Amino acid sequence: MRHILTSEQFDRPFLEWLFQQTDSLRTAFAKQQLGRPLDWSMLFTIFYEPSTRTRISFEAGASHLGMRVVSTENAREFSSGAKGETLEDTIRILCGYKPSVIVLRHFENGAAERAAKVSTVPIINAGDGPGEHPTQALLDLYTIAREKGKIDGLTIVIGGDLAHGRTARSLAKLLAKFDDVQIIFVAPPRFRIGRDIKDYLKRHHAHFSEEIYMFPALAKADVIYWTRIQSERMMTWMPKFMRRWIAMLMQQPYIIGRTELERIREDAIVLHPLPRVGEITTEVDIDLRAAYFRQAENGMYVRMVLLDWVLQ
Amino acid sequence: MRHILTSEQFDRPFLEWLFQQTDSLRTAFAKQQLGRPLDWSMLFTIFYEPSTRTRISFEAGASHLGMRVVSTENAREFSSGAKGETLEDTIRILCGYKPSVIVLRHFENGAAERAAKVSTVPIINAGDGPGEHPTQALLDLYTIAREKGKIDGLTIVIGGDLAHGRTARSLAKLLAKFDDVQIIFVAPPRFRIGRDIKDYLKRHHAHFSEEIYMFPALAKADVIYWTRIQSERMMTWMPKFMRRWIAMLMQQPYIIGRTELERIREDAIVLHPLPRVGEITTEVDIDLRAAYFRQAENGMYVRMVLLDWVLQ
Amino acid sequence: MRHILTSEQFDRPFLEWLFQQTDSLRTAFAKQQLGRPLDWSMLFTIFYEPSTRTRISFEAGASHLGMRVVSTENAREFSSGAKGETLEDTIRILCGYKPSVIVLRHFENGAAERAAKVSTVPIINAGDGPGEHPTQALLDLYTIAREKGKIDGLTIVIGGDLAHGRTARSLAKLLAKFDDVQIIFVAPPRFRIGRDIKDYLKRHHAHFSEEIYMFPALAKADVIYWTRIQSERMMTWMPKFMRRWIAMLMQQPYIIGRTELERIREDAIVLHPLPRVGEITTEVDIDLRAAYFRQAENGMYVRMVLLDWVLQ
Repeated sequence: MRHILTSEQFDRPFLEWLFQQTDSLRTAFAKQQLGRPLDWSMLFTIFYEPSTRTRISFEAGASHLGMRVVSTENAREFSSGAKGETLEDTIRILCGYKPSVIVLRHFENGAAERAAKVSTVPIINAGDGPGEHPTQALLDLYTIAREKGKIDGLTIVIGGDLAHGRTARSLAKLLAKFDDVQIIFVAPPRFRIGRDIKDYLKRHHAHFSEEIYMFPALAKADVIYWTRIQSERMMTWMPKFMRRWIAMLMQQPYIIGRTELERIREDAIVLHPLPRVGEITTEVDIDLRAAYFRQAENGMYVRMVLLDWVLQ
Repeated sequence: MRHILTSEQFDRPFLEWLFQQTDSLRTAFAKQQLGRPLDWSMLFTIFYEPSTRTRISFEAGASHLGMRVVSTENAREFSSGAKGETLEDTIRILCGYKPSVIVLRHFENGAAERAAKVSTVPIINAGDGPGEHPTQALLDLYTIAREKGKIDGLTIVIGGDLAHGRTARSLAKLLAKFDDVQIIFVAPPRFRIGRDIKDYLKRHHAHFSEEIYMFPALAKADVIYWTRIQSERMMTWMPKFMRRWIAMLMQQPYIIGRTELERIREDAIVLHPLPRVGEITTEVDIDLRAAYFRQAENGMYVRMVLLDWVLQ
Repeated sequence: MRHILTSEQFDRPFLEWLFQQTDSLRTAFAKQQLGRPLDWSMLFTIFYEPSTRTRISFEAGASHLGMRVVSTENAREFSSGAKGETLEDTIRILCGYKPSVIVLRHFENGAAERAAKVSTVPIINAGDGPGEHPTQALLDLYTIAREKGKIDGLTIVIGGDLAHGRTARSLAKLLAKFDDVQIIFVAPPRFRIGRDIKDYLKRHHAHFSEEIYMFPALAKADVIYWTRIQSERMMTWMPKFMRRWIAMLMQQPYIIGRTELERIREDAIVLHPLPRVGEITTEVDIDLRAAYFRQAENGMYVRMVLLDWVLQ
């Protein structure tokens, strides 16, 4: 049985197959030649915490493929209070209702793996706490491949809050599977990429460097992957208004606006996992190099291919 | 592209076409001859605040037409807290998931218009804060047309809380598009219809008058459109129990019960946007002139026609 | 019109028909020969309080039958606050949106019956407060019939919190419709089965006895129906931590684990309405006599048959 639990489970041949499949699927979809290939199947979206964007992209994708969908954003009810039951019991019971696949969002690291152990149907991890969110990582990678035509040999700037950002960390790991990729991490001192990621990259012979200022890095980039500085996570002993104020100051040198756009190469692209809250200004949106809304759209197509894959 | 943003966007020919289409659709539906004309399409219901009745009537109507539905009542999550993103970003991302139409409920005046500016698919406004709720206004008007066979020349009593009631205000404006309509507003002094509406009616040469007591008005009415007195909006400096008590006293002369029914003409109808909380007693329900449940049902048919219209 | 309001509305011939139908349906489903017999119909799930498991089993079952589903877990919004409307008004309005059947979950005893009085479509009670939850009772009974091949003549131990447990009470009443059933109630002194149930059983000439210790009872059982001790309901004047501690002590002699399993007959089965929170240990799960996950699965099939039945 095929589960999707972590972005590391995929090797390079799979990733290349995935990119190709996604290209084919979106072409078929645009030409309205997709049909309803999965109309025999049923998706359960079981969300222990709301993540409306992820849920909607899975449900819309599943529906475009003809799947029927049974949905809850209220799964925490299963495990809360006097009625509290284990994730394992919940998954066993849900499997008895005969879904074809379960998309699971949970607040605990490792939840998807625990679910997969007892499940009789494929589990797709739609984020488990601070842990993994593999379909996000795959859509990021697919967007680079699609926009740039390749991944090998690219210079990729990953910036923002690299200490806490799950997507930035996952992307870095996936990039290590490709050849001659140059990663430049850009982050304020307190938000640098973790030692575990750097060790991982070294073990896989990936080239990377770290910067504090974004300007030199931006000019070299083929791809700029920008993220929000999660100021709510810093200096939690300070009063909130003070943290906000410091966060604002701190974020200032990491905002991509019209001026920064001028320093970026003509053929570069700007990505962001979204939502953004100011770290890329809306002036950037009309620039063709701003690829983040296309990236979000890619998310649905990648998820459609993955739904189809686990059901084979 | 066709959006439905405000009840004022429609002219009289459109309204007449809408009434006719709704009549045809309900006949086809009752005879089970409707088929699934929109089974190629997908509806997103994106609700930033719950409005279960409105959402269910859209989703049921869409489903009756064969549309697939992806739904959230939790859209506020998009814009809340640290993840907060603009409505414009959210709509752009949702459009990437390729719905055919978005039904949007929002808590801010003008939200639907802002959404329509960036959307690549039709937006239907399902209420934006104190602003517009055009499909409610259209179903009210359709009910009058259907029940009375015409709108021109009718005497229409609009009563209750006319200062805050969105539906009463919208209906008054729509009625001004018809000929020789007499509107009688009935409201307690503090809850009279706004000057803006009266100016609008004057500009459009509509006849109207204002009353404080309901009895003389009721006797003249072809149509009685009754609404709840929103006592929670008055004298907010008073303690709650006192406001309730005053509200009860204040509402007393504006309750339609069996006695009031006797004063109403045999061929009149009683409408209410619902929910009601006592301003029309349940004794009235069995009277054939009580049209408010038929009015609610009409809501679904009107919305089905509008879904079909924006998708043409 | 056929409603499902209480487990007592069914006589023995109906129950036997139901068991047979459920067997046929699950066979057809497993062979993928079910088709979509109800694809002309639409289900509304109207939940005034969340009960995610029940809702999902209804919605998945309905979807497997080809029904379209419109869903809310937020129905309490109808009746809350200033917008508060009666259940009767809500049901009348929902019927106007032309569902084929409404599955209703409510927090008030008797709500389903009140709904059925004004509804123009079948109502299925999915739990109304401390009152009834008939589809749960029917799936419990079906599981016994399926696992043991018959109900007549069985010895059935019902244990745990019999004072508050709705499912245990309903099951006891249903068992009285069969011949020569021996019921042994096992509960701590404060959690004994109610006098009303005992009177009911006497009136229907059913054999029953009561025990405080579980061991002698377990050894005699064909069927063990175990439930959680709802410690949150006891001694509410005590601080919470104390109640938890006492509950833990109190529950100790009522936990079924590996040791208890050794005392149980080879051909006995262990049932539980789930969720469990420790009263059956996970060691028991791999034993073939542990039937509670099969029981949960049966819930969907029974509900599918009932959906089909009310729509005839």
